[in-house]
Amino acid sequence: MAVRRLAILGTGLIGASIGLAAKRAGVPTVTGWDLDPEASALAAARGAIDAAAATLPAAVAGADLVVVCAPVGALAEQVALALAGSGEETTVTDVGSTKTAVCAAGAGSERFIGGHPMAGGEARGPAHAKAELFDGATWFLTPTAATPPERYRLLHGFVGDLGATPVAVDPASHDRLVALTSHLPHALANLLVNQAGATRIEGHEPLAAAGGSLRDMTRVAGSNPRLWTEIFLQNRDAVLESLREHRRLVEQLEAALVADDAGFLAGWIGEASVNRRRLLERAFPDPGALQRLSIHLPDRPGAFAEITQALGAERINIEDLELHHHSVERGGQLELIVAGETEARRAAEIVRGQGYDAVVLPVLEAL
Amino acid sequence: MAVRRLAILGTGLIGASIGLAAKRAGVPTVTGWDLDPEASALAAARGAIDAAAATLPAAVAGADLVVVCAPVGALAEQVALALAGSGEETTVTDVGSTKTAVCAAGAGSERFIGGHPMAGGEARGPAHAKAELFDGATWFLTPTAATPPERYRLLHGFVGDLGATPVAVDPASHDRLVALTSHLPHALANLLVNQAGATRIEGHEPLAAAGGSLRDMTRVAGSNPRLWTEIFLQNRDAVLESLREHRRLVEQLEAALVADDAGFLAGWIGEASVNRRRLLERAFPDPGALQRLSIHLPDRPGAFAEITQALGAERINIEDLELHHHSVERGGQLELIVAGETEARRAAEIVRGQGYDAVVLPVLEAL
Repeated sequence: MAVRRLAILGTGLIGASIGLAAKRAGVPTVTGWDLDPEASALAAARGAIDAAAATLPAAVAGADLVVVCAPVGALAEQVALALAGSGEETTVTDVGSTKTAVCAAGAGSERFIGGHPMAGGEARGPAHAKAELFDGATWFLTPTAATPPERYRLLHGFVGDLGATPVAVDPASHDRLVALTSHLPHALANLLVNQAGATRIEGHEPLAAAGGSLRDMTRVAGSNPRLWTEIFLQNRDAVLESLREHRRLVEQLEAALVADDAGFLAGWIGEASVNRRRLLERAFPDPGALQRLSIHLPDRPGAFAEITQALGAERINIEDLELHHHSVERGGQLELIVAGETEARRAAEIVRGQGYDAVVLPVLEAL
Repeated sequence: MAVRRLAILGTGLIGASIGLAAKRAGVPTVTGWDLDPEASALAAARGAIDAAAATLPAAVAGADLVVVCAPVGALAEQVALALAGSGEETTVTDVGSTKTAVCAAGAGSERFIGGHPMAGGEARGPAHAKAELFDGATWFLTPTAATPPERYRLLHGFVGDLGATPVAVDPASHDRLVALTSHLPHALANLLVNQAGATRIEGHEPLAAAGGSLRDMTRVAGSNPRLWTEIFLQNRDAVLESLREHRRLVEQLEAALVADDAGFLAGWIGEASVNRRRLLERAFPDPGALQRLSIHLPDRPGAFAEITQALGAERINIEDLELHHHSVERGGQLELIVAGETEARRAAEIVRGQGYDAVVLPVLEAL
């Protein structure tokens, strides 16, 4: 059984992208509703929904599946309204980034199964929606002991049809997972940039002396205060747990420093190296084979295209890449990640042949 | 007065790059010495030094300036040897990433002035040296009350000739600055990846569920255990100070979460947004004008070059760029930073004309 009538509540970036991906997957009827009629009209104009419903009950009535894509703070209420406005034929899910609260709200009904796609972006609103948003992404689902298998099968199949990989997890574990892998990093980025920003050292401003590592580590700092305030509070207990554990690990490091314990430090950095490798294994099948090509780049239009064009012509696939802008006058550093040493050497020769300096190094140091 | 006879002790990445930059600036005689004769031979072969001296005393005798580029642990000893092996005509400096210890070691002589270029890279050894390494970089210098102005002037001019910007600071302030802007971020990257790596949540491995923010924030995790153990221990007091302050800020955040204090959280994230903007102002003259272009990219050779080539042909300058590799099968997300809204819209039209999806957003949210 596949979803034939889909209702989407909240047609922002995620909701409208679900609509586009569902239409791509061949779902015959997609109805949308948004508290803001402009958002649903725009989603309809972009083809993300077939029709904008005038009211929430009108949108959900008769649907096989309702996906609630409201902001975190409004999720529980809209899930309850979706359940109340629909019958036995309808399964309801959501896309909220925390699951304990919304699953408690939906727990009265076996028709509700929580969900959370690990996808998104800095862009907001239906104008930025795209069908590919969920391609290859993990999509957490939180079935419970009371969830009927056929409802889970419907939702599982739907998520797969959107291009995502469904992963079942219980709501509390989900919230601890995202606290550790998303909310804690966000919190540390804010803490770090605020600590550097609040300090003056003999008239020197630390932010002015910052190198690449501080810039990398504060990329998400300060983003969307309203949304993140809600997320931190919704997932308060799990975030607190991860912050306390973090603080315990900081204390352990402090103790090692006080004791001048070089052995601890070397072991701790070595462990980080192993963990970093495991993290990369998710994105790359063989991270050990990855090579980094560093190229000094003058700051002028075209230099960059010249290099990538030559590599493309030679069928060299760039796995990942970054440009660090050193200064407007001096140009920057281009870093290309290429799989395989032979491939990397070949790329370096091509780049050198164009008159650029290129250095090749493995991404992961030998363990 | 300019440096005419330069001696470099330690011809690794930094030492050999100083040699190349000095030759580029027209320094007539550059002598090098390294504990490893292969390193000095390679530096000579690359033109980074005119001659490799057989011994440290032979290298420093008669030099106007000696730059000690030994590993952190060997700095104090080589500075002392350089001072002992040279006379009044010679000024001695170093490039160590912490300054208190080495400046204490050199404090017996008014001929020593500490230094620290904020440049480097993951590559090591003279093979990766380049003359441009210091272009536009901050180069800290630590003159004291006892430093004769003419010696400082010599070193200041030399550093400027290498392409760097000399910034004077006292040794203790320097170490607190780098503790906050470099050593603390490094420590947090290691702590974060180790916390995620050490946790299992109901059979789920957090590292497998990690999103982009964890990946960004652990980029430097696990790098070079020997070097970083030395750096953390050399700068122990300042690192401890920054870790304790960090822990205090974590506790403050925990208290706000326990109290459900939405006002604190929103203010704290807003403050991070302001600080992040100040951080970017260093790299970009007008960060408010920066626009981010997000493009979905299929994983095949050439797609990437096709886009950048078209932008280059239209003289659109890419200020910064990243490619996030979503998965091997599904391709990735290309993010281009372009200055100015008109320029960004123009770039988006070009990219869309090639059949790619492109979304434009300001880098910094309106404050």
